Amino acid sequence: MFAIAITLLIIEIGVPHVGEFGSLFEELVHLWPSYLGYAISFLVIGTVWANHHNRFRLISRSDHILLFVNVLFLMCVAFIPFPTALLSEYIRDEAHRTTAVAVYSGTLAVTAVFFTLLWLYAAGNYRLVDRSVDPSLLRAMTRRYVLGTLCYILAFVLAFVSPAASLALIVVLALIFVLPEPEGSRNIRRRSVGG
Amino acid sequence: MFAIAITLLIIEIGVPHVGEFGSLFEELVHLWPSYLGYAISFLVIGTVWANHHNRFRLISRSDHILLFVNVLFLMCVAFIPFPTALLSEYIRDEAHRTTAVAVYSGTLAVTAVFFTLLWLYAAGNYRLVDRSVDPSLLRAMTRRYVLGTLCYILAFVLAFVSPAASLALIVVLALIFVLPEPEGSRNIRRRSVGG
Amino acid sequence: MFAIAITLLIIEIGVPHVGEFGSLFEELVHLWPSYLGYAISFLVIGTVWANHHNRFRLISRSDHILLFVNVLFLMCVAFIPFPTALLSEYIRDEAHRTTAVAVYSGTLAVTAVFFTLLWLYAAGNYRLVDRSVDPSLLRAMTRRYVLGTLCYILAFVLAFVSPAASLALIVVLALIFVLPEPEGSRNIRRRSVGG
Amino acid sequence: MFAIAITLLIIEIGVPHVGEFGSLFEELVHLWPSYLGYAISFLVIGTVWANHHNRFRLISRSDHILLFVNVLFLMCVAFIPFPTALLSEYIRDEAHRTTAVAVYSGTLAVTAVFFTLLWLYAAGNYRLVDRSVDPSLLRAMTRRYVLGTLCYILAFVLAFVSPAASLALIVVLALIFVLPEPEGSRNIRRRSVGG
Repeated sequence: MFAIAITLLIIEIGVPHVGEFGSLFEELVHLWPSYLGYAISFLVIGTVWANHHNRFRLISRSDHILLFVNVLFLMCVAFIPFPTALLSEYIRDEAHRTTAVAVYSGTLAVTAVFFTLLWLYAAGNYRLVDRSVDPSLLRAMTRRYVLGTLCYILAFVLAFVSPAASLALIVVLALIFVLPEPEGSRNIRRRSVGG
Repeated sequence: MFAIAITLLIIEIGVPHVGEFGSLFEELVHLWPSYLGYAISFLVIGTVWANHHNRFRLISRSDHILLFVNVLFLMCVAFIPFPTALLSEYIRDEAHRTTAVAVYSGTLAVTAVFFTLLWLYAAGNYRLVDRSVDPSLLRAMTRRYVLGTLCYILAFVLAFVSPAASLALIVVLALIFVLPEPEGSRNIRRRSVGG
Repeated sequence: MFAIAITLLIIEIGVPHVGEFGSLFEELVHLWPSYLGYAISFLVIGTVWANHHNRFRLISRSDHILLFVNVLFLMCVAFIPFPTALLSEYIRDEAHRTTAVAVYSGTLAVTAVFFTLLWLYAAGNYRLVDRSVDPSLLRAMTRRYVLGTLCYILAFVLAFVSPAASLALIVVLALIFVLPEPEGSRNIRRRSVGG
Repeated sequence: MFAIAITLLIIEIGVPHVGEFGSLFEELVHLWPSYLGYAISFLVIGTVWANHHNRFRLISRSDHILLFVNVLFLMCVAFIPFPTALLSEYIRDEAHRTTAVAVYSGTLAVTAVFFTLLWLYAAGNYRLVDRSVDPSLLRAMTRRYVLGTLCYILAFVLAFVSPAASLALIVVLALIFVLPEPEGSRNIRRRSVGG
């Protein structure tokens, strides 16, 4: 589903129409918000995908609450192409820029909230996580996701002050989440491969 | 295929176009039927997906009748984005609301009928289900799907009396099908994991 | 890829626009060629998918010719949504019906030709098929695909005489290919499951 | 993700609209750049897919740099439907042909650069490749990708001189990459199957 949402992003960029005397090159340059939106959302969905995949390797059981929150989370991820298109359409338009960036960062914030709830529910008291997992790893992951969510909420608030700063924060967040995870997480995996 | 149909739902929501003096925020609020349609169909396809997946774990054999009914069932599932878009377009329009909701609930009713036929064919006389499956579990599942189908047909009929009540019933049904399944079903799975 | 092509078919059906005094129901009925096109192409891609899947279970080796013909075959399958949309648009239009049906049946004929070439290349002299496969099964499959291809070519020719007859033949072909395969094919599979 | 990008290509071809007295056949013939764009991009994505799949079978470890370059590479692949649509729209239009072909070949060149960086990083000093892999195979692969990338860059430069020559080179490149790989690569695989 992540693969589909990430690939659908390109459909939202329409081919520009230009007459004989216009410049296709200028029209394509003019479309830069679409490329920017595509790149940011691709990066965001990509990192969300990797985090979802890695955390579900730690979650060894499942129950209906987990499944339900997961459905709400996936509903947010699959929704991302819409605010991305909105962002691309209105980022150049001073009158509507704030609204577009707020909707975009707001969607990411809600997505982050559901992901963090998913993790807090699964990891709290080792509810759905194997007892053998190092508690310091769980704490590190919890810290990572709670902090990340707060930053996405900050990006939403920033949208009303400075849309550019809000987008910059979102890009920085995506790049941080691409960085190596805390040590413990990799040890776990090495062990699971070695065992 | 479920993953693709569920992700395609977002494509049907177009970015609103608003002039310099319009309010993008109001236009986005005005699009609420699109978000509602997206959320309901996402929930419906999600629960149908889970039920299809879980029931096919009980079905251990396959024949051409099963495959053919399954194709018709999948044809209905992949069709859902169309009545969803119809619902979103006309739910605010008093003159066409009844038709849109009837087509939407009717599509879900037909989908439910094919799913129930699939199950009745496979489970009847243990035709394609393993002998080791508890008969009371089969009966519980049959009851669940026959009742569910009757409710979807009721939602279709309700559409002509009160479109809002019809949609409310559909949401309630989706939420009920997210709830835990009858006990036996989980026992089976625990055993299959333990064995 | 089959799953994606089959699910994309629904995107080609646009929601009808109707004013306050029009009838949405009539507009939806008027769209019947779209539903017909959707159903036929869904059935066709579905049966092609099953045949491709089943034959590749017999093919135990691979080489670059097989891969290349397979790419051309998949290129045809992924193309099917386009002639389907064409068919839906022009089937009611007497002036253009013949062209639309000819393009549609022609696409299916070319697809069938590539599939049959794939099979003839792989099965000829047991080139890429395991020696343990019953020769009478290979012959039955070859007969099935050569005959099927001839029928699709016939459907293409029929389009110029009677578009309706051409479409009817295509539906009949899809239904025939859903029917049980020759005995040997199922024996093979039972053995491979039993062994 | 490759499967989705390759199947989405068909969505970019719109059904032509023609009045009662126009010729649908002529309109369809007139769409030849769309078919050409579809076929070339299908071939290109198909061969990129196969190469990506085969090289990742040699890469036995992973790190964050590899993952990050891979995300950038996939971002380029998922972008290809856009310049393909651009190419189809403007290839007949003398005023804009050069721009369209330059954007198309430029996208492929950037995609090739990221793929080659991916390979050079993984294969250099056996960083992420198993020690048991024959060094001459690694060298052959490196030669293949560096040369291929230079050819794609040449196609980009050629676009400004002769768009037709640029496209011809791209088609030739796709066909070359479909051809058998150097001997060693197949030995490796035979061994991995035999072991």
